Amino acid sequence: MKLLENGVTLEDNERLDDLRRNGYRLIQNPDLFSFGTDSVVLSSFCKIKRGETALDLCTGNGVIPILLCAKTEARHVTGIELQHESVVLAQKNVLLNGLADKITIHEGDIKDAKKLYGASFDVVCANPPYISAGDKNMNTKKAIARHEYFCTLNDVVKSAADCLRFGGRFYMVHRPQRLSDILCSFREFKLEAKTLRFVHSRIDKPPALILVEGLRGGLPGLEALQPLILYGENGEPTKELREIYGE
Amino acid sequence: MKLLENGVTLEDNERLDDLRRNGYRLIQNPDLFSFGTDSVVLSSFCKIKRGETALDLCTGNGVIPILLCAKTEARHVTGIELQHESVVLAQKNVLLNGLADKITIHEGDIKDAKKLYGASFDVVCANPPYISAGDKNMNTKKAIARHEYFCTLNDVVKSAADCLRFGGRFYMVHRPQRLSDILCSFREFKLEAKTLRFVHSRIDKPPALILVEGLRGGLPGLEALQPLILYGENGEPTKELREIYGE
Repeated sequence: MKLLENGVTLEDNERLDDLRRNGYRLIQNPDLFSFGTDSVVLSSFCKIKRGETALDLCTGNGVIPILLCAKTEARHVTGIELQHESVVLAQKNVLLNGLADKITIHEGDIKDAKKLYGASFDVVCANPPYISAGDKNMNTKKAIARHEYFCTLNDVVKSAADCLRFGGRFYMVHRPQRLSDILCSFREFKLEAKTLRFVHSRIDKPPALILVEGLRGGLPGLEALQPLILYGENGEPTKELREIYGE
Repeated sequence: MKLLENGVTLEDNERLDDLRRNGYRLIQNPDLFSFGTDSVVLSSFCKIKRGETALDLCTGNGVIPILLCAKTEARHVTGIELQHESVVLAQKNVLLNGLADKITIHEGDIKDAKKLYGASFDVVCANPPYISAGDKNMNTKKAIARHEYFCTLNDVVKSAADCLRFGGRFYMVHRPQRLSDILCSFREFKLEAKTLRFVHSRIDKPPALILVEGLRGGLPGLEALQPLILYGENGEPTKELREIYGE
């Protein structure tokens, strides 16, 4: 155990990563879900204007609220997370970075978000579980973060729609395999998909991720953006990826 | 007026283009819709196995059935077209290329396709009108081919679903702006989108077109392919575009 800033402790089974933004750091627990490229590209895809409020669904260790505080002028960001151990970790990360006045982490089920918050947010974002639950029932902590055991894609989209003011925006990162599910679910919950960006590891590969922006109450009509390419021909990070990572 | 092969005449207001496949040529009338990159990339995106039958909705001057005969081993291709002058032109083009035993052009409304054909085809394809009709009513022949006056996106997708055998495939080229409309319409008519490819003029530009493959009765799960890039940095056609054009 090691004592960090603001009375926060780093346990022996935890590691400390540099977020390369504003000096922010993140405690991660390898037994829980750790953040990856998807959280980082999502935080750069989110457009939050000065003074706006945001809600991060399935916030995990709190990486997205912290990155949003680094990259935008959001007034306040709320994160909601189901798993108690992740909530504790996210709250430690908020304290560690001195962001207690800007970020609130709630322990709760996103299906209760409507009751908790009403249609109050300017922006909602989510890096939700990607994989259909199927028949399996592997209730490990990592599996819950990755599979739709406790929240389906429809749950995430419905919660986002419920918590957004009219005209508010929803930003989500997901897998291309689910694109029909996503666009149909957006439409079902009156969150029209307005912007779509494919994320490719290399330009000659299929997209590995998709970024989608939905507009609460928006009219049909989608803008597909130029692809986000992460690595060049020789495996070097592209200029845009380096910018996203704050280099 | 000029006499071409097989008793076909080229009128003074018509022009003759080389399709650069099998020596096939195409008579076009500048007053009607002329084929472009979209028809050519669609014909290369269509996967038709040896001996299969195909239907081309909104076939126009017949360019897609002719390209499909050049690029695939389809047993027979039917084209259906609403506008009488385009039908006459398409029938001339079939004759000119000696394809009367492989291509049939019907004058008709795609909304009657179910009555005409039943669920009989292995493959359906379409390069339909891209643009919502809106309030305008510019009923010129070109406008009818480009706007949804006489057939909406839903009409096209429904007709495709109606005419496909279970397990048959639908190939469509369209604009990215309509992606939500397309994927939701596919799902509504039980034509699950299985493959999606973005077409970019250059890699640093947003996609100009999308190619979608739907499977009649298919299960959810979409594969997004690597992008099709048409031109390189200096405006030169890419290797893939040259292959598509038969060079």
